[in-house]
Amino acid sequence: MDVFVGVARREHIAEGGLSVYELHYWPTIQGRGEFVRLALEHAGIAYADVAREDEHQGGGEEALIEALQSKELITPPFAPPWLKAGDLVIGQTANILLFLGRKHALAPNEESGMLWTHQLQLTLADFVVEIHDVHHPLGVTQYYEDQRAEAKRRAEEFRGKRMPKFLNYFETVLQRNPQGSEYLVGSAMTYADLSAFQVIDGLRYAFPKRMRTLSPRYPKLIALHERVQALPRVAAYLISPRRLGFSKEGIFRHYGELDGE
Amino acid sequence: MDVFVGVARREHIAEGGLSVYELHYWPTIQGRGEFVRLALEHAGIAYADVAREDEHQGGGEEALIEALQSKELITPPFAPPWLKAGDLVIGQTANILLFLGRKHALAPNEESGMLWTHQLQLTLADFVVEIHDVHHPLGVTQYYEDQRAEAKRRAEEFRGKRMPKFLNYFETVLQRNPQGSEYLVGSAMTYADLSAFQVIDGLRYAFPKRMRTLSPRYPKLIALHERVQALPRVAAYLISPRRLGFSKEGIFRHYGELDGE
Repeated sequence: MDVFVGVARREHIAEGGLSVYELHYWPTIQGRGEFVRLALEHAGIAYADVAREDEHQGGGEEALIEALQSKELITPPFAPPWLKAGDLVIGQTANILLFLGRKHALAPNEESGMLWTHQLQLTLADFVVEIHDVHHPLGVTQYYEDQRAEAKRRAEEFRGKRMPKFLNYFETVLQRNPQGSEYLVGSAMTYADLSAFQVIDGLRYAFPKRMRTLSPRYPKLIALHERVQALPRVAAYLISPRRLGFSKEGIFRHYGELDGE
Repeated sequence: MDVFVGVARREHIAEGGLSVYELHYWPTIQGRGEFVRLALEHAGIAYADVAREDEHQGGGEEALIEALQSKELITPPFAPPWLKAGDLVIGQTANILLFLGRKHALAPNEESGMLWTHQLQLTLADFVVEIHDVHHPLGVTQYYEDQRAEAKRRAEEFRGKRMPKFLNYFETVLQRNPQGSEYLVGSAMTYADLSAFQVIDGLRYAFPKRMRTLSPRYPKLIALHERVQALPRVAAYLISPRRLGFSKEGIFRHYGELDGE
């Protein structure tokens, strides 16, 4: 298993001797796994992106599906991503981030900050579901091509009502942060900021016209995106081969017919 | 504010002097607030269901919307439900349950059990989103009547693929529990069991035909529903006026045209 893909992480493990995490996620898309990857990358945590290894090293989509269907796991995940951390097998993106936040200072330790960070993450997760459902309003087991007319109707509602509602919410959270508007929670970066970056990045890819219209209304959120993007380890990750591109297979998909000013 | 609606809770506060929680949720539906109500009721926690108070006591839908739009809260919720617990204002259903689980022994304290319980809750939350979206595939801001044909298509996929997939998952979790199949996590009840009860209850209301066909395949899950329903405080709650009925306004809606064997 080729664990030390990143320089930052190679240094980190050499210094700290942390145990190596295994991320299990679809190998060809950012998807929900990307929220976990960003946290692992920013924190400089050693991890293996298991399904992206060579097949003879246990990688590949088939091995991932096989692992998901394994009858041996007493705490099976419903779907990827899941994180193996020693004996723990943790499923659900927000739950993985809750774990990483506690262990690697990616969220406040005290209860109110821990819960507030998690609340924001769960609201981002709700947003992500709606972003996804724009192109799959009739369900995930049917092709986009078989629900294009319905997607168009849902996209209108999304661009007009839901997208501004969610973006406005996170702008408001930044505005009201008594410790300044640099980050969502207090004065330090949390996993929720990393996830907010990813959502903005994805929306810009999927809805470029709509984002050009809306962005000026959310200056603090756009500034947060820039701030996270410039963090040294995030910046290094984004230009590395470990960062997969956006595509028409993931959550954020660009179909011109679903976008609009 | 009329806090002591239930006998169990009146006794509890008299004994323990716990601070009184405020649940804020839409006053006329079970909705997502019901997952919180079940946890509060089962744990015998004193709480006020604020929006269901009289209007002159701060109740009602308008007051709820006003509170949601308040500019004073530095940690605003995106939507109901939220729970006020002393100085804390906690939003997102699963996050509220995470908090209650820690404080009131509704989940294991140690990390692996805490995370596993939360993972199950988040998977139930995903299921709830899909159950809701069956009757609103084109979005929440349009009426059901304006998306009936699309709802019918989505319902077919849901009944045929997604519903068995989720139900089978929770049956598997019960089967694999090394401490027996009475509860989802270990040998004691958690908030995830209460939520699983509510999901099964709602599915039986919304899709009675389909549930009659599917139930024999998930005997442990059906037994869990019966077990939770028979818990003294849950049983008392379910026949009390505090338990709202299912209706065509909530998550679980019965439209004959969306059901089928």
